[in-house]
Amino acid sequence: MPGQVGPVVASAPAKVILFGEHFVVYGVPAIVAAIDLRARARISRRDDELIRIRAPDLGISGSFSQDGHFLPELGREGAEGTLKPIFIAVREVLRSLGVSSGLDVEVRSSIPIAAGLGSSAAVAVSTAAAVHWLLSRRLDRELVFNAALEAEKLVHITPSGVDPAISTYGGLLRYTKGVGIEHLKAPGQLELVVGDTGLKRSTGALVSAVRALRDRRPSRFSSILEAAMELVAEALQALGRGDLEALGELMDVNHGLLCSIGVSNEALDRLVHSARRAGALGAKLTGAGGGGCMIALVEPGMGQDVARAIEEAGGRAFLAKLSLEGVRIEAAP
Amino acid sequence: MPGQVGPVVASAPAKVILFGEHFVVYGVPAIVAAIDLRARARISRRDDELIRIRAPDLGISGSFSQDGHFLPELGREGAEGTLKPIFIAVREVLRSLGVSSGLDVEVRSSIPIAAGLGSSAAVAVSTAAAVHWLLSRRLDRELVFNAALEAEKLVHITPSGVDPAISTYGGLLRYTKGVGIEHLKAPGQLELVVGDTGLKRSTGALVSAVRALRDRRPSRFSSILEAAMELVAEALQALGRGDLEALGELMDVNHGLLCSIGVSNEALDRLVHSARRAGALGAKLTGAGGGGCMIALVEPGMGQDVARAIEEAGGRAFLAKLSLEGVRIEAAP
Repeated sequence: MPGQVGPVVASAPAKVILFGEHFVVYGVPAIVAAIDLRARARISRRDDELIRIRAPDLGISGSFSQDGHFLPELGREGAEGTLKPIFIAVREVLRSLGVSSGLDVEVRSSIPIAAGLGSSAAVAVSTAAAVHWLLSRRLDRELVFNAALEAEKLVHITPSGVDPAISTYGGLLRYTKGVGIEHLKAPGQLELVVGDTGLKRSTGALVSAVRALRDRRPSRFSSILEAAMELVAEALQALGRGDLEALGELMDVNHGLLCSIGVSNEALDRLVHSARRAGALGAKLTGAGGGGCMIALVEPGMGQDVARAIEEAGGRAFLAKLSLEGVRIEAAP
Repeated sequence: MPGQVGPVVASAPAKVILFGEHFVVYGVPAIVAAIDLRARARISRRDDELIRIRAPDLGISGSFSQDGHFLPELGREGAEGTLKPIFIAVREVLRSLGVSSGLDVEVRSSIPIAAGLGSSAAVAVSTAAAVHWLLSRRLDRELVFNAALEAEKLVHITPSGVDPAISTYGGLLRYTKGVGIEHLKAPGQLELVVGDTGLKRSTGALVSAVRALRDRRPSRFSSILEAAMELVAEALQALGRGDLEALGELMDVNHGLLCSIGVSNEALDRLVHSARRAGALGAKLTGAGGGGCMIALVEPGMGQDVARAIEEAGGRAFLAKLSLEGVRIEAAP
């Protein structure tokens, strides 16, 4: 193989759950959207066989041998755990092409991490796509998805595949447990504001708490679940007709149902109310709750006021449009 | 009849809805408690036949002739409307006794008005009881209830009778539309903190908005209604065993369901969260929502912290125990 060429830069979007988090565990479909907060991977060839990975935003770097042995550089503590999924994504692409090549990988991201926005999947997807392009001049989305899904198995024990799917393909999807992923026709445009409480939460603990509630109060829980099922059906119809007002109202209702199963908290409710007060069409927590992020749906072009209100209420706000495009090659030699 | 004697003082408690507001319109039972915030009426005879009523807390006073003609004194604007229900309560007692007597009526109350706490009923009940005692030396609760119910018909077009019933008899009751009022065995003690947002709201407008939601989304609404029905059944069980922790959790769930039908707001949620954060066992809006009051259930003796948190969050807080006693005669010559 020739010496170092490149770099190739690929980017991939973050995700938000528009409707159905938590209830998805019990069979309610979740509606998930790609948003234009992106992770970027920059890849170039090396003369040796090392996969050197740098995440300058996190101040960590290190190298993996082709067989996965880790040589730390910066940010020893936890560096291997953070970089390993990225290495797995690279390794899967190399395997599928039947080559072994040394690579320099640099990842950067504007996606809040550990906030339920699919940051790790977006990093893996952008990395796999850039590596594949560098080595084959093709963007094979299925291959990229599968490589990122392998990487996700290190992050989540049994990943649903939703995060790498939405990051690879963009747009909107419906995920139903036991059925899988269906891509949805996206409405013209959706403009969201993501508000990050900055509070860490444990998805696992929240999912367990909801399960305990279900086991303790099956009858009440199943009524709430039915309401959630109706709500997602209504949301699919509203998306189909591009009815933003209905979508906003349904987000408010979904937030209420999530409150009734105990997964919201004070910080999330504060950001949700600040967004509604500032004119959002609707607002809800997104993801596991108990911290992490909320989202607000806004009229096109009206995100700034809502973002300001969220910041004033103590959150970090990000304007985020629906990203119809999934992973893409940004630059190639 | 002899000349002026008295005064007789009677007091009657306020009410809070513990569970089931709004859903009660659609057949879910509501659980209502008397709390020891009280209205007081002080009655003495006059030598003439006027019913002179003073509400010094509100800065209004005026006199009614026996046939209901109003002679204003202080606070002309709206004074007649405010004082008329009190006159009706007096008139009903006089009618039932077959007498016509001039009376001086002074009402005072520690119950926030127009906040969903049954202030008008407590005033009418305490007035009717004091008048009845003054003229007959008896406290006939059924007569008092009926007199106050007549007064309530001026305040609410079709009163359920819940407010005068709880204020007359105290304790706990279950009200089911189409079934009526059933008194419940009260648990040992309930300590609540009432938080008043200070925001006025229109019960009628909120009830109408919920009805519009029901008409627009009958299927989703009926699932939420079923969850509310389960919840009230659980609450009755928890009350039966005096299980404060379960009651607190159920209050949180009930608040979530009220959020999902859109009747909470930012101020209520802020007070609810402040109470939970300060150690309340549970917290929810009480009454119509959209302003008005919330309640928090606390461990016995732990109300001060929660009250302070509610005040810091911008509300007015009132410690309020379950009042097993309804109307009572406080002083009589």
